[in-house]
Parts: sequence; structure tokens; C-alpha cells
Amino acid sequence: MEDLAEKNVDLADRDILDVCLGLEHVADIVELLNEQDIEEQARVLIHLPDERAIEVLDQPGLDDPAALIEALPTDRALKLLAGMSSDRVADVFRYMNDPPRSDLLQRLDPETRTSLDKVLSYPVDSAGSLMTTEFVSVPSSWTVEQTLDHIRRVERTRETIYSVYVLDPKTRQLLKAVALRRLITADPKASVLTAARFDKPITVSPTADREEVAKLISKYDLLAVPVVDESWHVIGIVTVDDIIDAIVAEGTEDAQKFGGMEALDEPYNTIGFWAMIKKRAGWLCILFLSEMLTASAMQHFSDELDKAAVLTLFIPLVMSSGGNSGSQATSLLIRAIALGEVKLRDWWRVALRELPTGVCLGAILGVLGVLRITVWQTAGFFDYGVHWGLVAFTIAMALTAIVTFGSLAGSMLPFALKKCGLDPASASAPFVATLVDVTGLVIYFSVALLILKGTLL
Amino acid sequence: MEDLAEKNVDLADRDILDVCLGLEHVADIVELLNEQDIEEQARVLIHLPDERAIEVLDQPGLDDPAALIEALPTDRALKLLAGMSSDRVADVFRYMNDPPRSDLLQRLDPETRTSLDKVLSYPVDSAGSLMTTEFVSVPSSWTVEQTLDHIRRVERTRETIYSVYVLDPKTRQLLKAVALRRLITADPKASVLTAARFDKPITVSPTADREEVAKLISKYDLLAVPVVDESWHVIGIVTVDDIIDAIVAEGTEDAQKFGGMEALDEPYNTIGFWAMIKKRAGWLCILFLSEMLTASAMQHFSDELDKAAVLTLFIPLVMSSGGNSGSQATSLLIRAIALGEVKLRDWWRVALRELPTGVCLGAILGVLGVLRITVWQTAGFFDYGVHWGLVAFTIAMALTAIVTFGSLAGSMLPFALKKCGLDPASASAPFVATLVDVTGLVIYFSVALLILKGTLL
Repeated sequence: MEDLAEKNVDLADRDILDVCLGLEHVADIVELLNEQDIEEQARVLIHLPDERAIEVLDQPGLDDPAALIEALPTDRALKLLAGMSSDRVADVFRYMNDPPRSDLLQRLDPETRTSLDKVLSYPVDSAGSLMTTEFVSVPSSWTVEQTLDHIRRVERTRETIYSVYVLDPKTRQLLKAVALRRLITADPKASVLTAARFDKPITVSPTADREEVAKLISKYDLLAVPVVDESWHVIGIVTVDDIIDAIVAEGTEDAQKFGGMEALDEPYNTIGFWAMIKKRAGWLCILFLSEMLTASAMQHFSDELDKAAVLTLFIPLVMSSGGNSGSQATSLLIRAIALGEVKLRDWWRVALRELPTGVCLGAILGVLGVLRITVWQTAGFFDYGVHWGLVAFTIAMALTAIVTFGSLAGSMLPFALKKCGLDPASASAPFVATLVDVTGLVIYFSVALLILKGTLL
Repeated sequence: MEDLAEKNVDLADRDILDVCLGLEHVADIVELLNEQDIEEQARVLIHLPDERAIEVLDQPGLDDPAALIEALPTDRALKLLAGMSSDRVADVFRYMNDPPRSDLLQRLDPETRTSLDKVLSYPVDSAGSLMTTEFVSVPSSWTVEQTLDHIRRVERTRETIYSVYVLDPKTRQLLKAVALRRLITADPKASVLTAARFDKPITVSPTADREEVAKLISKYDLLAVPVVDESWHVIGIVTVDDIIDAIVAEGTEDAQKFGGMEALDEPYNTIGFWAMIKKRAGWLCILFLSEMLTASAMQHFSDELDKAAVLTLFIPLVMSSGGNSGSQATSLLIRAIALGEVKLRDWWRVALRELPTGVCLGAILGVLGVLRITVWQTAGFFDYGVHWGLVAFTIAMALTAIVTFGSLAGSMLPFALKKCGLDPASASAPFVATLVDVTGLVIYFSVALLILKGTLL
């Protein structure tokens, strides 16, 4: 860690620093800093007042707080870390490289260290890793007025004061959650417990996944949810703004997985070339190897292909339709399961619904297919042979069967994954397409054998 | 509208009603009601106290508030509507059928009617349609103490009191936004303006899309954002819990579009059969018609296909790999653009990055392809002919070219859509696959002609 503070700040730097000093909203500073390289970011941060620099580091929008802390003089870094909220400090240490990491860890003040250890002990994306330990709690023996006085005193150092947690004075177990809006309208002389609206506060365990926390916060319209351990002690809170970031990150992860790759975990423009290849090549190879089964299927039917070469013309068309209907059904069901609209036990209800839907959609495409062949044949664009009517019929029947299979398979896949304890969102469009491609080919040739036996085949 | 209140409540109903009366959290009541039919929901609602029934109807989680209001006796419905927040009332009237709709509209009290008209005049999913008109505003001439007293008086009737809007006493234009946490720690005798942290409050226009509102709320960690008209009057506020619901809904919409269909706008388990077919058949037909170009391409190359039938075996394999890499690139870029990581002007930077990525991924698959052919050929699983080495080389070259094209086309599609003023999220995996399928076939046969000219072709 070099001492950047001693370097002269040249004009170009001063410009960005000036702009930063002139900005009201810390989120705007962060946006500007994200466009600079780490050295530049560090130089700006060094010249910001402590309180402001802490605010900058506390913003989840900051691309790489770990690298930024590494680039700061150690003393300054320690001072800023002590002021940051515990979930952010944990994020910094989670991504920091080792020489400066252990160095800083050792010199951290005991209070920051304790809450850091707590947060770091929980898995990534769990309630425990998202929580901040800066919340307001008061003993149940206090009055409303005492509580409000306490809130006024600690306001500056707490991430939110809109939810106050009332603890048993002896055991320190959580008794109630009280909203600030109830406190300021309650009788000041009454017990703080009178301001509680609900008997039992909504809580999460530290190991709960961020998706679960998001569901609770969204369902009960909470501004924060307390994280409690087995003995009912509040170890932290997850606030609504952390959850918004988590929902957005979850959306990105799901979108990337549905696109047929591993989730990047990093912004597109900062991830390295080989890291990107690694995230994409894995699934691409798995899909390629699975799709090789299509070559095997074609080899199996190579006699039929020789006899009725006209059938090959429609292979991509028929196959892709199955993949498309499967992709629709999968995306529908992934979301329906994620939102809790459909439960695992409803799988047969969904199957009963996708069956007629698939038949209907397949029939629509079948009609289009027959029209195409008829028009091309009668208009003389292409000659599909003397049995073109039977070929058209084959295409229509195969399309109906394959689209039905695609809808069914696509809708059942998320259930199957959930049943196996996997994330239903791991079902990707390319994966469904591959699944349906191979089966689709077999269906296509089987239908053709059935219909064209004795004529073309 | 029949008077359900006069019907006898039988035992089964009483059970659900009893359960509902015993539940603390209104979100739990809503969850239970969503599983009942509308008649049952109405019966329960009739027996809940007014305040509780209003809370139920105010929950965005309630599946069909419009049908529920329709099923209530008119007088009760009017009473409940008057108590509901304006964004919820607007939602009810947006989805209500006409005989009861105009009936209720006419008999609505003037205050509810005015705020309803305001919200209904804005497009669906805009800030104006999401906003509630129940917010706290005070003139800038007031002190902190006066403001707090006012908040205490109106607390019950406001959706949030955590943000207070300070208006010019004469023009009623928005001057500042003040957070409750600053108010309760400020000097009670000082002007309310002293509690404002920022010079210029963050605001949105009523026509802003919900995505834009979500970005603001998430960037600046707001609990609510004021919606102001051109003359800088606050016409409502959008609260963070509405925005969480909006982000989740946006995620569903994007996932369904990426799956290759129109967004459902309704839960999977409540949408009707034909409505579902309509949402899915449109894109399926468009994709089918586009994919017909593959048949045309194959017809164009039918001479080559006759001469080198071995090439047909690998058509699905080669084509699908292009689609898969395209789907990866599209999902990556849709998210990167949505999150603002990548701007429209960065398209060439992305292209320069996807080009080597595509070549590298394609080469990896190419090696796998050559391995497969070599193993099958030498182990005697299948005979690809005397020129099997050249065929393998063709497959490898075609894969590299097609995967590169897929990555490029897939990554550029979201930019092209954005450039045309369309939502980049309209690019779907099946659409990209279709695009790449057709081009992929042409690439495949061109590469084959180049390599196999004089031997197989």
C-alpha cells in the first residue's frame, strides 16, 4: 500500500475531486468514481472528509470497494473501515487480496472485528452476510419517551432507526419490533411495548437465502427484518435497500443462467477475458456434448434419410419449434415457482394444463407448415416429390407432437430440478432446447415412419 | 352485485373467517384469501372490520381486488374504496368490468374520485400509475415541532410518514424533502428547512417508467420518491414497497419475454387457456415463419446435400451451438444494459470483446467435434466416409465461425433494439437462436463448399 496522500494531485485529478466535492448525493459520487481507475478513486477518497468517504464506501453501487481500500494508506483505511456498516466491511474483506487483507484484519479495532467475524461466518447471499449490526434495540422496561431519546442519541450511527427492537431486559431475547411511526404517535409515558403492533415480530435466521428475505420484506412491506439466532437474540438486521440490491442481483443471476451459462458475479465490463470464457464454456460444452446425441439419432435414421432426403429439409424447422415452445414453458414455470404462484405439489396440475396448450400451439404451427408446403409445391417454387401431401401431413403431425412434448418437458424441468433440491432457475433456454432437439428428432422420424411407410420409406 | 352479507355463513366459511380474524399480519390473510374463490373471499371480507378489510384490499399481493370489490355489496365497496390508498383504488378500477365499474365510479366520494382520476390518467407501469396521493407535506414556514405535530395527527391516513415534503407556502412548489429521522433529531424550534439534508430533492415525472423509478430508489436508497408535474407540484409519491413489487413484476416480464413470448401480466395459475395461447402463439408463429428460411436454405443447398449426405448428420449440432452462444451473449447484454453497466455508445467495445470470446468458445467446441468424429471413426461406431478427416475439419471450422457469429449477433441484438427505441429485453433466446440458425446453415454449407470442393462436393 503506497502513500498516495503525499503525491501531488495534478489538474485532471483536481477536476474530478472538485466535481466530487460539489456533488450532494453520495450515489452520484459513486457513479463518477466507478468510471475512474482505482488509483484515481483512491486519490479522490483521500481528499474527501472522513464522513463522506465512509458514505462512499457504504454504497453498494461502488464497483470494487476492496481494491479501493487496498489502495488507501493503512491508517486511513482502518479509520474508514471502523465507520462503515458491518455488511459493507464484510463485503470488502470477502474480496480483498491477501497481503493487505490479513494486515488490515489484525489492526482492526475490536468492535469492528467482532461484527465482521459474525457477518463473515455466514454463507454468501445469506441473511447473515447481508445484515448490518448497526440497529436500534431497547429493553422492554423503557417508556416510549426513553426510547425516543435513545433513538435521537444514536441516530447518526445506525443504518435505520425506523424499526426498533424491544428486548427482554434479562435474557436480551427479542420480544417485539416497533415502528418509529407508532413510537412518535404513542403516549410518551407508556411502556415501549404499547407501541408494538404485532404480537410476534417477523424474523429470519442468519442462514436464510436472500431470496427468502426478499420475499418476507416484500410480503409484509417491511423496512427492515431482524436476523435472530436459535436463542432468539437479534444479531443484525437486513434493510430494504440491501434487499432491493439483492433482488436485482438475483434477477441478473437468473437471467444469465436462463441464457445458458454460469452467473458472472461481476459486471460485464470488469470481468476478465478468461474468467468470462470459463463462465460460458462449461455449459456450452455440456450442451454441445448432449446435442451430439442428435448426430447419433440422425446416424440411426440414416437409411430413412437416404430414402427420403426431402425430410432433411425440415429438420431445423421442426426441431427448433419444439425448443421454442419448451423455452416458453420453462421461463413461465421458473417465474411462477419463484413467485410462489405454483408449488411443487402442483406439478400435475401444470402438466394437465401444458398438455392441451402444447397440442393447440403445435396444431397452429402444423397448419402453417402445411400451408407453406402446399403453396411452394403448387406455385412451383420447389418440388417436394409426388408424395408431397403425405410429407406435409408428416410435418404437421410431427410439429404437434414435438411442440406438445416441448411444452410438457419445458414445464416439468423446473419442477424436476426443485424436486432434486436444485434451483429451478438453473433450467436454461438452451438446455431445454437441447433436450427437446434430441427427442424431437426421434419423434420426427418415428412419425415419418408411421405415415410414410410403404410410400417414401 | 348480490348482498352476500345476508346469506348465512356456513361452518366451512366460518373456519376460514375464524382463521383470518385470528391472523396478525394482513399479508397472511391475503395469502389465505388468494386460495379461495371470489365468493368466499367476499364473505370473509364482509365480516372483517372496515379497517382490516381496507388493509387487505391495499395489499398488492391480493390476486384480484377488482373481482372482490365487484362481489361486495355496493355500500360496503364504496366505504372500503374511500379508505384505500389511491394507487390500489386505481388498480381496482383498471381491471373492473363495466356494469359495476361505472356504477361505483358515479357514487365514489369526490375526494377519492379526484385522486383516482389523477392516477388513472397515467400509463400503466408509469410513476403516475404507481403513486399514492396520501403523503405528508408541510409549508416551509413551519417549525420542526409544528411539522412533527402535524405528522402525529395525520399518521394513520398516510402510506408513509418517513419522508416529508416541504412546499413553498404561496406557490405550493416542492422545496425540500425531509426524512423523519432528521426531524426527530433536529431542534424543535428551528425551521423545518433546517432538517433537510439536500439542496434539491430527487424527484420523478409522472410519466417515468417504473424501471426508472426503481433505479432512482435503489441508487439513492430512498424510502419514497415524490412525483412532481411540470410546475414542480407534488402530485403523489412512489414508496419503496411498491417499487419492490414493480421490480419483481419487471423481472417476470423480462424472463417471459426472454423465454420467447409476450409477458403474461397475470399469474400463471389464474390466466385463462385462450389468453395463454394468445400470449404464446404469436411469437411461436413469428419464430416458425422465420425458421422456414432454414428450409429455404436447405433447398438451396439440396445438390450439396445429395452429394455429401454425411453433412446432414451434423446440421442440428452445428446450428444449435450457434444459438446457444447467441443466447448467452444476449442474456449477458440485456442485463448489462438494464443495469447501466454498458451504454448504447459502448456497442463497439462489446463487439471487440465478443469477437475473440466467440472465436475461443467456437474453437473449444471445434476440438470437441473433431474428437467425436475421430473416435467414432477409428473405433468403428460409424463410418463418415473416406474423407472423414476433411469432414471433421469442416465441422471444426464451421463451429468456430458460427459460434463467433452467434456471440456477435447475440450481443449486438439488444443494442440494435435499444437503438430502435425498443426494450432490449425484447430480445429472446428463441429469437436469437432462429436468427443464428438460418445464418448458421448458410455459414455451414459455405465452409463445407470451401473445404470439400473437389473431394466430397
